[in-house]
Amino acid sequence: MDVTAPVSRLAAAAALLLRLLTARSLQPSHAGALLRADDDGLHLIATDGEVVVHLRTPATVHTPGEVVVPRRAVADTLTTLDAADARLTVQGGRLAIRVPGGRFALPSLPDAAPPPVHLPPPRGTVTGDDLRTAAVPVAGAASREHALPMFTGVRLRTNDAALTLFATDRFRLAAASIPWHGEISGDGPIEALVPAAVLARAAQQLSRVPAVHVHAGDDVFALSWDGGSITTATIGGGYPDAQLSRLLDVAPVCTVEADADALAHAVDRATAYGGPHGRVTLQAIDGALLVRADDPLTGESEQTVKATVDGGHTIRSFQGRLLLDALRAFAHHTVRLRFQEGMRATACTADLPTATLTYLVVPLRTPSPTDT
Amino acid sequence: MDVTAPVSRLAAAAALLLRLLTARSLQPSHAGALLRADDDGLHLIATDGEVVVHLRTPATVHTPGEVVVPRRAVADTLTTLDAADARLTVQGGRLAIRVPGGRFALPSLPDAAPPPVHLPPPRGTVTGDDLRTAAVPVAGAASREHALPMFTGVRLRTNDAALTLFATDRFRLAAASIPWHGEISGDGPIEALVPAAVLARAAQQLSRVPAVHVHAGDDVFALSWDGGSITTATIGGGYPDAQLSRLLDVAPVCTVEADADALAHAVDRATAYGGPHGRVTLQAIDGALLVRADDPLTGESEQTVKATVDGGHTIRSFQGRLLLDALRAFAHHTVRLRFQEGMRATACTADLPTATLTYLVVPLRTPSPTDT
Repeated sequence: MDVTAPVSRLAAAAALLLRLLTARSLQPSHAGALLRADDDGLHLIATDGEVVVHLRTPATVHTPGEVVVPRRAVADTLTTLDAADARLTVQGGRLAIRVPGGRFALPSLPDAAPPPVHLPPPRGTVTGDDLRTAAVPVAGAASREHALPMFTGVRLRTNDAALTLFATDRFRLAAASIPWHGEISGDGPIEALVPAAVLARAAQQLSRVPAVHVHAGDDVFALSWDGGSITTATIGGGYPDAQLSRLLDVAPVCTVEADADALAHAVDRATAYGGPHGRVTLQAIDGALLVRADDPLTGESEQTVKATVDGGHTIRSFQGRLLLDALRAFAHHTVRLRFQEGMRATACTADLPTATLTYLVVPLRTPSPTDT
Repeated sequence: MDVTAPVSRLAAAAALLLRLLTARSLQPSHAGALLRADDDGLHLIATDGEVVVHLRTPATVHTPGEVVVPRRAVADTLTTLDAADARLTVQGGRLAIRVPGGRFALPSLPDAAPPPVHLPPPRGTVTGDDLRTAAVPVAGAASREHALPMFTGVRLRTNDAALTLFATDRFRLAAASIPWHGEISGDGPIEALVPAAVLARAAQQLSRVPAVHVHAGDDVFALSWDGGSITTATIGGGYPDAQLSRLLDVAPVCTVEADADALAHAVDRATAYGGPHGRVTLQAIDGALLVRADDPLTGESEQTVKATVDGGHTIRSFQGRLLLDALRAFAHHTVRLRFQEGMRATACTADLPTATLTYLVVPLRTPSPTDT
């Protein structure tokens, strides 16, 4: 292998490779990156055991070939390097990287080769911005407890015009829907359960990509874009789509609209006063939401957040951190809270430009006798 | 106690209080802040067991008085609060904080009262900018091993015109000197050994303060400024001033000048190739420094950094991280490296606007037979 590549593009690819993989993977067999030079330029391929990432970067290929080298060393070496182009050459089982004023030789790691990249069939396309808007908050509602693998995933389903994303840890549920441009193929709609952490990490990194292609096969899910792809195994087992969808049929007894940031700040402050569980109570009154919390040890807090209120003077208590996660998904927007009967979940929504996003939070039992 | 205070100033003071104290103090008796209202405004006083911090913030005092409350709760409550003024009132053993649209009540913590603030006599004044320029890199050369308390301190000494700071962990030594405006008093020059972490933390926070007053007594050291003070016990025992000062008499066999940032980047990259100890070798050649590192497992690296070289073609090896710490102290400047005979330390200096700063790094035994 012998190629010349622009340093800035190569350094950016090496850094993106690290960001798309989990840092916590400590297995030596996952420390490598396969560099391959062919007619398409220079490829970087690596795995952390959960995902396989494949990135392409432009290069002038003098001699095709490939080598596996420590991926962190490649990224660290290229960062802050003050040179336009780098020459990468495999010599005597090592990768030589040469720039004006510097030469580096990395040992090859033949035992750390990633598995081959097999993208499942392309099924449709979304924008990176939409994907991020939907996937990051929805993935945040998934469980981190691996004892129940089903709830660590984001459920993705498509119809003709929309990709819907779903996740719940049973105390809250987030659902989003974004515009979907399906492939004209006989594969029908997607139904996949994708590890939430993988989807969130990828969506964060791809927010500026104009077209993200969604691939799904029997047990494999992938995203691809101009310059790369990330592939992961899906989570097996059935998903209670029908039950969860029914939860989104919201029958409000009171609807409140408020500035999401002002309300989030108030809930954040109140949570500190809410005792060991951070219990925060919202009460709809005329023209405002009262945000209250108190505990014998931590003190008490009462704040008024301007709001438009339609319906009865409802009171609901929440675990402050869960409510805050929900409100933060609507940052910079007006959030609509729909309180339902009794212990049914409260729904948070907003009019986002292209996505719809609904975040349900299950209330705590209200200690107050004034509950409606 | 009953006062009205501007929220932004009070929130800034509460946040500064947290930053000047160590976060790791877990003792409940250190969780409080004493709020005291008197003719000077509102005082916030707190301790982490190592330092006592006293901050003053402007307030209209309706009724003087004092109360001890959880200091983190005060800071968290005031942050992001969208109000001009807050009213703080002690009622029934609790502190009530009221702003338009919000009221908070914090429990008092009578058992968490900080000790009284006793500033030792003022001895002189420096600028916050000079203090930061000198104290942060010097404190970085101190040891973190509490088994040898003497080396965890920064030695401060004064003469008529200069405050000198000194620290060493025995593998490197940093010394700085900044302009000093002494008090006209009979106390003579300062000789104090101050915990390095405390001095660095304070200097970071005070970099924009025009005048920082230095106080020193028998066993106590303090910094004060318009708005507050930080007091700490000094470290006891003698300090080998004479021996350490002699190390600063540098007899160079070769003097090299290079851009500190370019050299630091090269050393940083090389360190990754330097094996388990990050061994990096510098070699002075005509018009450049060669920065080299190699190890059978991590590969090899050779970089050329433009430099002016005066003297023989010297080679010295260093622990890369220690050399990098030294170079970073001279960021954005041209750094001068003076190599000495054999295993004597290499001195890094630069022409800083008002401070002088010297950083000595002890070389490793060079494996190469070409050592001069």
